[in-house]
Amino acid sequence: MAVSKCSRLSGALVKQLLESVDSVLFDCDGVIWRGDQAIPGAPEVINLLKKSGKKVFFVTNNSTKTRKMYADKLGKLGFDASEEEVFGTAYCSAMYLKTVCRLQGKVYLIGSHAMRQELEAMCIQQVGVGPDPVSGGQSDWANVPLDPDVKAVLVGFDEHFSYMKLNRALQYLCDPECQFVGTNTDTRLPLEGGKAVPGTGCLLKSVETAAQRQAQVVGKPSNFMFECVADQFGLDPSKCLMVGDRLDTDIMLGSNCGLKTLLTLTGVSTVADAEAHQRSGCPHRQKMVPDYYVDSIAEILPALQG
Amino acid sequence: MAVSKCSRLSGALVKQLLESVDSVLFDCDGVIWRGDQAIPGAPEVINLLKKSGKKVFFVTNNSTKTRKMYADKLGKLGFDASEEEVFGTAYCSAMYLKTVCRLQGKVYLIGSHAMRQELEAMCIQQVGVGPDPVSGGQSDWANVPLDPDVKAVLVGFDEHFSYMKLNRALQYLCDPECQFVGTNTDTRLPLEGGKAVPGTGCLLKSVETAAQRQAQVVGKPSNFMFECVADQFGLDPSKCLMVGDRLDTDIMLGSNCGLKTLLTLTGVSTVADAEAHQRSGCPHRQKMVPDYYVDSIAEILPALQG
Repeated sequence: MAVSKCSRLSGALVKQLLESVDSVLFDCDGVIWRGDQAIPGAPEVINLLKKSGKKVFFVTNNSTKTRKMYADKLGKLGFDASEEEVFGTAYCSAMYLKTVCRLQGKVYLIGSHAMRQELEAMCIQQVGVGPDPVSGGQSDWANVPLDPDVKAVLVGFDEHFSYMKLNRALQYLCDPECQFVGTNTDTRLPLEGGKAVPGTGCLLKSVETAAQRQAQVVGKPSNFMFECVADQFGLDPSKCLMVGDRLDTDIMLGSNCGLKTLLTLTGVSTVADAEAHQRSGCPHRQKMVPDYYVDSIAEILPALQG
Repeated sequence: MAVSKCSRLSGALVKQLLESVDSVLFDCDGVIWRGDQAIPGAPEVINLLKKSGKKVFFVTNNSTKTRKMYADKLGKLGFDASEEEVFGTAYCSAMYLKTVCRLQGKVYLIGSHAMRQELEAMCIQQVGVGPDPVSGGQSDWANVPLDPDVKAVLVGFDEHFSYMKLNRALQYLCDPECQFVGTNTDTRLPLEGGKAVPGTGCLLKSVETAAQRQAQVVGKPSNFMFECVADQFGLDPSKCLMVGDRLDTDIMLGSNCGLKTLLTLTGVSTVADAEAHQRSGCPHRQKMVPDYYVDSIAEILPALQG
């Protein structure tokens, strides 16, 4: 439909794009909210999309919340949303371990209580959540007691990440049969005012370095995040629109899965970033060029109200 | 002198090699000792080398001991050695910050008490050593109080490594003027029985991922480790022999600095590893092919006694 990639989405093009899709997938942070504040107009956009018969999904790499926690937050901020529409990496990792890894056993979890809850909701037992301070010396660490039922290591965001957790993951992963899964590779969590804190990608990289193995990554831009939604709701990729603020995760996911893509400028990436990818001539980087961009998803509103 | 690389060192070749050098640099773990046990014959080799007028140095990537702690351990195991002959990365990092970085300010240290002592011995103040448990939430982490006098982040081995330390390093390194130094990139510390625990390389990789910057690395195979010895003792590289058990650190350092190289098979690397590098045709990998190898440095003994 687009004559060239990375066009500003405005005027008649908005309606045309919306008519061409039956499902819209939204990233959350930097797209529909920032921190605890909805992006102005975002709840109206999502609620009107649903009223007009579109399916709407919330697809996020954040692993610190359950589907229910997301649905509650969405409700509080004025979004009409249900748990079943939320696909975070806490939930999707549990799905991945169950359906792709076909895990028979426990998980050694570097992650949050929310991840534990999503695992338990799928009857997957975990060990490891919470603080794990170091004691003893090298030989104690190398001989740390392991749970023989653990058959996978799962790494998500964990503020209690420590040398001892890194060591425990290494000891489990020395068994080549032990599966190795990461929620996502985002290196930083951006906050207001240009600040940032370390993201799951930093923790995963240190475990990968210790284990001398690469994790299977669940989150965007891995196809699994879309397949997880598509399988449950019978989606046709060519009739889906992915809306996100990050070229390397959201837009790349869309390109990988054959979705239409829309970059919104209320978050991390800029039009200049997208244009640099476009000019690069590199096929990999060109997957990070969105079909369209908007300053904010509020720009879709007039087309929905008209 | 060698007709081909990676020859077994034996017979007349031993004496010939020893006569061609005036200094011998030994890695420690896996070369002269394993854990707390001297390699049989190693003390005799080192003591006779010194008696025969060779200079001997101990060059290790381990950052958990001061020069004095090394000299004490060497003495206990029967090696004739003094502090001045020991070049560990705790000491060499302090030297690097002083002489290469010309640091004016404090160091944020992810590392050991030994590193703190070596820094303080060069009048460099540090903050950060010891446990640093997490509290609060993302916005607290992003606004964690920073010491305005910190002008460098130094990452070495730290069993108290934690999310909070990773975060603090990121906050300091957001200032592009803040220097970033790592002791070494060894990914694992090998122990007896094929076991291993995570090495400094895992910690450094997670800080590099968070900071989106690469650290300046002090340890082998960085030339600095040799230069540190060479500058203090006026060494001629062509008259030095580097003896080590790791191709990627010890032998690579030797190749990078124009030293003769000897692999000993009492540690990590094998002859098969070396031969694979030799066959690779890759100039980088060929730097990891030693001139000679021995099963143990004890094989040098007859040439010294004879």
